[in-house]
Amino acid sequence: MKKVIVLVEELYEDLELWYPKIRLEEAGYQVIAAGPLAGHTYNGKHGYPCKTEMSFKEALSVSNVGVVIPGGYAPDRMRRSAEALQIVKKSFDKGKIIAFICHAGWVTISAKIVKGKKVTSFIAIKDDLENAGAIWQDKDVVVDGNLISSRHPGDLPVFAKTIIEHLG
Amino acid sequence: MKKVIVLVEELYEDLELWYPKIRLEEAGYQVIAAGPLAGHTYNGKHGYPCKTEMSFKEALSVSNVGVVIPGGYAPDRMRRSAEALQIVKKSFDKGKIIAFICHAGWVTISAKIVKGKKVTSFIAIKDDLENAGAIWQDKDVVVDGNLISSRHPGDLPVFAKTIIEHLG
Repeated sequence: MKKVIVLVEELYEDLELWYPKIRLEEAGYQVIAAGPLAGHTYNGKHGYPCKTEMSFKEALSVSNVGVVIPGGYAPDRMRRSAEALQIVKKSFDKGKIIAFICHAGWVTISAKIVKGKKVTSFIAIKDDLENAGAIWQDKDVVVDGNLISSRHPGDLPVFAKTIIEHLG
Repeated sequence: MKKVIVLVEELYEDLELWYPKIRLEEAGYQVIAAGPLAGHTYNGKHGYPCKTEMSFKEALSVSNVGVVIPGGYAPDRMRRSAEALQIVKKSFDKGKIIAFICHAGWVTISAKIVKGKKVTSFIAIKDDLENAGAIWQDKDVVVDGNLISSRHPGDLPVFAKTIIEHLG
């Protein structure tokens, strides 16, 4: 089974993690929830629990076809982890899909993969993405090479559909 | 757009409502969240909010292709509503898809549509379904005519896939 890594941290946006996770499982992918610690339960912004299967460190050595980064305030925490950023940067450099939604753009800024790239995000972090050199667009989904981004939970249907089309 | 009604009440299981809802939207259906009151916000068991677009009464006159009933403790409340039960019974009698998961079997018991039918549910309500005359099976998804049922959130990928296959 092809593997997709979804990054987890406290205060993730519940549906932005779970909708793509279950949707990709439905489509036949193995979706691995990775966080700072393996076997630890992180709680969504609204309280939904997610137990990690791997630590960021373990996930670094997993051969994946893509990485999904949910929003909420989790990205503010993920970007402080060198391993989380390496998962994103290494996967990006190998041409794997990097899908991020809402505040998850923060992680892509710190992984230094958005300069010159077309992206979208929750409106609050538009300035941060533009200051990092990205070309920000107000669209439900923006695809630029292997980067796929959306704005908020309302975009989840098209976000997931687009990820699946590009994962192949 | 073909319409699907999803029933909402306090303490619904968050993913059992939202995964099918967003998944069916992704597949091109209009999914209408209906609860006791229109425009009211009901909170999931884990705290995710769902604002209803219609009351049960209004939803009764909507021509739908299916009804989805999430679990959690919401079904214990839904089954006390004559209008909610009428939505389920009328739609069932017209051959529309009735999809229910986890504790949602309680609603189908009170709507009197499970006698002699193969179903599944969360293990806790197996006795209630059998006492209502249903044939209970321990499978991730059970289809009997226009009834589709699953056991718990872990079954959501196959539950949603099966609903979409049968909605046509």
